[in-house]
Amino acid sequence: MPRLLHRYGCSPGKISARGCELNDHLHTAWEEMEVYRLAESSKGAGMSVRSKVFARGAHRTLNAMFADESTAPDDLIHVTCTGYVSPSAAQLLVVEKGWRQQTRVTHAYHMGCYAALPAIRIASGFLASTTCPSHRVDIAHTELCTLHLDPSDHSPEQLVVQSLFADGHIRYTLSDGSGPAPAATPNMAHSGYRVLTLADELLADSADDMQWSVSEWGFRMALTQHVPEKIGNALPAFLVRLFAQAGLDYSAEKEDAIFAIHPGGPKIIEQVSDALGLRPEQSAASRTVLFKYGNMSSATLPHVWNEILESGAAEPGQLVASLAFGPGLTICGGLFQVER
Amino acid sequence: MPRLLHRYGCSPGKISARGCELNDHLHTAWEEMEVYRLAESSKGAGMSVRSKVFARGAHRTLNAMFADESTAPDDLIHVTCTGYVSPSAAQLLVVEKGWRQQTRVTHAYHMGCYAALPAIRIASGFLASTTCPSHRVDIAHTELCTLHLDPSDHSPEQLVVQSLFADGHIRYTLSDGSGPAPAATPNMAHSGYRVLTLADELLADSADDMQWSVSEWGFRMALTQHVPEKIGNALPAFLVRLFAQAGLDYSAEKEDAIFAIHPGGPKIIEQVSDALGLRPEQSAASRTVLFKYGNMSSATLPHVWNEILESGAAEPGQLVASLAFGPGLTICGGLFQVER
Repeated sequence: MPRLLHRYGCSPGKISARGCELNDHLHTAWEEMEVYRLAESSKGAGMSVRSKVFARGAHRTLNAMFADESTAPDDLIHVTCTGYVSPSAAQLLVVEKGWRQQTRVTHAYHMGCYAALPAIRIASGFLASTTCPSHRVDIAHTELCTLHLDPSDHSPEQLVVQSLFADGHIRYTLSDGSGPAPAATPNMAHSGYRVLTLADELLADSADDMQWSVSEWGFRMALTQHVPEKIGNALPAFLVRLFAQAGLDYSAEKEDAIFAIHPGGPKIIEQVSDALGLRPEQSAASRTVLFKYGNMSSATLPHVWNEILESGAAEPGQLVASLAFGPGLTICGGLFQVER
Repeated sequence: MPRLLHRYGCSPGKISARGCELNDHLHTAWEEMEVYRLAESSKGAGMSVRSKVFARGAHRTLNAMFADESTAPDDLIHVTCTGYVSPSAAQLLVVEKGWRQQTRVTHAYHMGCYAALPAIRIASGFLASTTCPSHRVDIAHTELCTLHLDPSDHSPEQLVVQSLFADGHIRYTLSDGSGPAPAATPNMAHSGYRVLTLADELLADSADDMQWSVSEWGFRMALTQHVPEKIGNALPAFLVRLFAQAGLDYSAEKEDAIFAIHPGGPKIIEQVSDALGLRPEQSAASRTVLFKYGNMSSATLPHVWNEILESGAAEPGQLVASLAFGPGLTICGGLFQVER
């Protein structure tokens, strides 16, 4: 196993740490495991137990995210592709906070690693639908990726998956900018971004390259080695279209832009950077987030946005092009501008 | 079993027919079953097989829905709470139709029976976000409820569930009204509705009254007998708020309005009608849809909207108040007006 993991798994030089909600990953007292009770089943516990662990973890996380929040958001969009339990953690939070008649809950589930961008598309629509200038849409991601490992599957494909994915959570807010600004954390150089435009594209002949579906022993990922290449090939034309949608010329803006690439793994960042001819510092935040936390599915890209602001590398007014990928194959893009 | 079903199940006088995608329900050749292979497991096949059946059924259904459609929608929102497979049927359709760069796919999954209303909230936002007058949002529901029956569970609660739920599908379109109108079917008196307003509310102390989560043998519903009463109690105040959001007085408009109540079962329609003091004809379409098709989860309410138009009972300009319910407990409401 160490030899196989060394050969196929992601090295600690690329991912230094990965969070896990489930205590099972932190000890080898097999009889005390909650999911990975391998004496009972080599695949671990079934979906019922995993759904319970997800419900508990998502509930705990959402309550922690909103512990100091005294004002009800008008909308709360819960994003996940790693657990489906209703009432959801978002619904429980709203009831427990006493926001039952103020906050609308929307589930943006099962879209995969790119889901932050459709969530922002949905949130932008909610803002565009209202005339209330203080309308606030909160987006909360809870991804428990490590809940879905199959410890009996030692195929190279699954060893890659098992060494990349981590649990992760994040919360952020969209408003139309005319209401009160959210409080910036002290070490943040800029308070946020302006969303200029969003775009989506499905790739042809790629339906089998990435799959994510529900099985009895957890959710199941299938992944081929063609993903980075297929995405890399499609990106240059996609970016021209993304920038044009915002009235901007990609080739003129590219050199000064930052690229927030979903760090699915080390290879996808390199392949995308190569395909676009980026300087290493243009995608540095993606590498930093992958190194610090691993691939947290849909929660990863928002952590990259945060890293760009917190690292102080971004200039006010600078463009940030976001790129994320998932089953379809789907490419999702967003063009943001660092607030002045 | 007949005695138990007669006692707890819904009678054929209330639900005359229920569709099922899975052939298993139509024969008793046990060795030829796909999911309900009871000799192998009294619960039937696990989630992997059920996910495959869902993927096949949803793909078939979406392709049939769009078989004659030659124009790409700008947005396609796929709604379901009975199967999660990526790439989704919506993504496969968009690729197969050659709409890869025109149509954005959004998943509105795992919200339960009320999901048509959040789907319309999302769609309305997409329309509000664009300046393109011809922007078209298609919403497609695929619900395979019968895929999640547990044939080994004969509790009264599950016998109720097993006798109410059916498979169902539907597609409809939202546009801002200034673009080309969608073609009306010949027997339809009016081409559609104007969406006046939407509202949501979570009920206190009701998290355990309805649950929907993923287990190894299908998705699992829990349901208490308190649901109709709790919802009935909350509705009068909810409707006052819903109508007020549209600048209307509920008590003044109520007598002339039609009520599209999600027909979860016969009891919920009666309880809601009683709580609101409705005349039977005001909720007739809900009873008709339940009788014709059963509870098709999120696909049911759009069938009620269709029934109201097709039955010819609605007058141009008449108000239609929609009410649907799900885990949380959540009440979702919509106020529509029949197009003049």
